[in-house]
Amino acid sequence: MPDSESSMIHTPAYENRHARLTTALQNVGIDALVLNPGPSLTYLTGLHIGLMERPTAVVFTPGQPPAIILPELEIAKLTGLPYPVQVFTFNDNPATWPDVYRRAVQATRIEGSCVGVEPTRFRVLELRFLEAAAPHAKIVSAESAVASLRMCKDATEISAMRNAVDIAQHALQATLSHIRIGMAEQDIAAELILQLLRAGTHADVPFSPIVSGGPNSANPHASPSTRRISPGDLLVIDWGASYEGYCSDLTRTFAIGEIVPELKKIYETVKQANTAGRMIGRPGIPAGEVDRAARAVIESMGYGKFFIHRTGHGIGMEGHEEPYMHAGNPLSLAPGMTFTVEPGIYLPEYNGVRIEDDVVITADGADSLSDFSRDLITIG
Amino acid sequence: MPDSESSMIHTPAYENRHARLTTALQNVGIDALVLNPGPSLTYLTGLHIGLMERPTAVVFTPGQPPAIILPELEIAKLTGLPYPVQVFTFNDNPATWPDVYRRAVQATRIEGSCVGVEPTRFRVLELRFLEAAAPHAKIVSAESAVASLRMCKDATEISAMRNAVDIAQHALQATLSHIRIGMAEQDIAAELILQLLRAGTHADVPFSPIVSGGPNSANPHASPSTRRISPGDLLVIDWGASYEGYCSDLTRTFAIGEIVPELKKIYETVKQANTAGRMIGRPGIPAGEVDRAARAVIESMGYGKFFIHRTGHGIGMEGHEEPYMHAGNPLSLAPGMTFTVEPGIYLPEYNGVRIEDDVVITADGADSLSDFSRDLITIG
Repeated sequence: MPDSESSMIHTPAYENRHARLTTALQNVGIDALVLNPGPSLTYLTGLHIGLMERPTAVVFTPGQPPAIILPELEIAKLTGLPYPVQVFTFNDNPATWPDVYRRAVQATRIEGSCVGVEPTRFRVLELRFLEAAAPHAKIVSAESAVASLRMCKDATEISAMRNAVDIAQHALQATLSHIRIGMAEQDIAAELILQLLRAGTHADVPFSPIVSGGPNSANPHASPSTRRISPGDLLVIDWGASYEGYCSDLTRTFAIGEIVPELKKIYETVKQANTAGRMIGRPGIPAGEVDRAARAVIESMGYGKFFIHRTGHGIGMEGHEEPYMHAGNPLSLAPGMTFTVEPGIYLPEYNGVRIEDDVVITADGADSLSDFSRDLITIG
Repeated sequence: MPDSESSMIHTPAYENRHARLTTALQNVGIDALVLNPGPSLTYLTGLHIGLMERPTAVVFTPGQPPAIILPELEIAKLTGLPYPVQVFTFNDNPATWPDVYRRAVQATRIEGSCVGVEPTRFRVLELRFLEAAAPHAKIVSAESAVASLRMCKDATEISAMRNAVDIAQHALQATLSHIRIGMAEQDIAAELILQLLRAGTHADVPFSPIVSGGPNSANPHASPSTRRISPGDLLVIDWGASYEGYCSDLTRTFAIGEIVPELKKIYETVKQANTAGRMIGRPGIPAGEVDRAARAVIESMGYGKFFIHRTGHGIGMEGHEEPYMHAGNPLSLAPGMTFTVEPGIYLPEYNGVRIEDDVVITADGADSLSDFSRDLITIG
C-alpha cells in the first residue's frame, strides 16, 4: 500500500483537549509541543496516521491552530476536522522536506522557545528536521505533560475499554473449547486470533497473543512455537482486543492434565498476588504500592526472585502507557486511571504462571474491568 | 502482557552479516552502530524485541561482540544465540537506566567516536541515554549503510517473500467469492483477514487491509468504513501477508456492477502504468526511472495530477523500506532488490484506482512476485 491506513475516530471535544494541553504545558514551562504520528497525536487531533519513513508531525502552540506537517497524499484525512488547522504538505522527494519544516516553524514562531516532544515516540528523523528549522529551540521531554492528559480516562474511554475486555474474554472462552492436548502453541494462537476477530476486535489487535506451554511459559515474552502442549504443563495465554481505539490486555494460565503440587502452589501464589494488586488500588496512593502489594505476596512464599517484571502498566489507546506499576513509582493514582495487574512467577526452563487483569481506579477504590475466572482451569 | 512477543528466526549467518556491517560502516567512516528494536536489529541479531517504553538497544562495534542493553525480563531471548555477546541488563526502575548505558558505552569504548543510528527508528528516548553516556560521541545517520545491507535479498529471503505473496493472493481469491453488492467495507476487510490467517499469514500482518469503495477509493489511505459497496463503484483492496518475517503488499481494484467509461479508462491507464513500472526494472538503472516510466503513462492520458504518490517502495522485513521509487531517486537498482510498483489515479470525492505488485530485480531485468489477474474483474 502507499502508506498506512487512517480514519477519524468519533469526535471527542478536541478543542477541550487542546485547552487541557495548553494548561499542562504551561504547568511545566513548555511553550509548544511537536508530536509525530501515534496515540497522543490521535488523542489530540482525531487523526490516524501511520508512523512511516516520512517525517509527519504536528506543532501545537497555545493560542494557534495546530500546524500539521503532512505528506500531500494524506491531505484527504484533514477533510471535516472539527477545528481549524494550519497545513504544510510535502511530497515524496526528501530534498523538499527541510523547507516544509522551516515554513511550519516560521508560522508557529517556535524558534528559540522551549519545545516539548515525546521521547518514546519522537524519532531522530523528526528531531533533526526540527533542530535544523529551529536551531535555537530548546527541545525537552513533554512525556509527562502529555501522559497526564491521557492517563485519566473519561466515561466514553472506559466504556470502549470495557468492550475491548469483553471481546477478549468472549474470544478466549470460544477458544478454550478447541484446545486439546497435543495442539501446537501456534495453532492455539491462530484459533484465538480468529475468535478475537469474530468477537469484534478491530483488526489491529494490540499485540499478537502469547501462547506458551511448559518450559516456554517460563519466558514472559515467548512467541507461540510449534511445541505441542503436554500433560503436566502450565499454559500461559496473554491476549487482548482493540475496540474504538482502546485496548485490553489479559492473561490466564491453565493446567494441562494433572500438574505437580509445586505448580499448583505457584498458581495459587500468583492468584493471591493478583488479588492483592487489584484490591489495593485507590485514589491518592502511589502507583508503586500496587507493585509492592502484589510482590509482597510472592516474596512471602519465597518466589520473589522469580517475579522478574513490574506488576503492571497503564493501558488505554496503547497497550503499554503511563502509569507504570513499578516498585517505588511515586505517581499518585487518580480516578479514571487504567492499568494492568499482572504478577507472575517464572521457574526457568520449567514452567511459569501469570494472571493479568485490567483495572480502573474509581472514586474510592479500584474495579476490575475483566472477570474471566481466576480459578485454575484444567484442560484435557 | 508484560511486554511484546519475541523469538529467534531461522539462523542466517549472523557473523557474515556482522562482517558486512563492518564494511558498510567503514565505507562511510562510522565507528559503531547503535540500533533499537526493529527489523534491522532482527536482521543483524535474530532477536525479536518489541519497541516499548524501555530503552533497549544494541551497540555494534567492529571487532567486538554486540553489546546488548536489555530489560532483565528479556534475558531468556539470548539463550542459544549463535555468536558471542556482551550483555547489560536493566530493571523496571528508570532511575537505573543511565548507569546501564554508561557501562555499555565504557565496554564498547564508543565515547568520542562517530556513532551511527537509524533516524527513522531510533527515538529521542534512546538518543538522550546515549548522549548522556557518551557526551563526546558524534551521532550521525547510518540509515543508508544499514539499508544497504538489507536492500538486496538473498534466495532465502526472496523465497519467504514469494510465500508471503502466495498467501496474500490465495486469501484474496477466497475473499472474492464472499463479496456481494451491499456489503460494508469493514465486513469485506474482516473476511479478508480471516482468509489471510487461513492461508497461513503470520498473525502480525504487515498492515490492516484497505478496502475502500466509491468516493472512499479516491483516498489512497482510507480505513475500511461502514459504507456499503454499490453498483457503479470502484473497489480498491490493498492487503498483504507476512511469512517468516517477510512481507507482501498488493493492491487490486474491482468494478462493482456496471461502471462508467471514464472509470474504465482510468483503470486501463493505471494497468498500463503498472506494466510499464514492472517492466522497466533492471540492474543499473536509477530507482527514479521506475517512477518515471509509470508516471509517463498516466501523464500521457492527462491524469498526472491525480497520481499523488510515488510509484513504489522497497519491501522485505518491513512493509516500507529502501529503495523508494520516487521521481529522481538516483539509487542504482541491483539484483535482489524488492519493491512495490503501485501507480494510482484518484479522482477526488469520486473514485480511485490502484494496481500494486511486488517486484524483484533479477540479473537482467525484473520479475513480478505477484500474478493475480490485473484485468478488470466485475463483482455483482
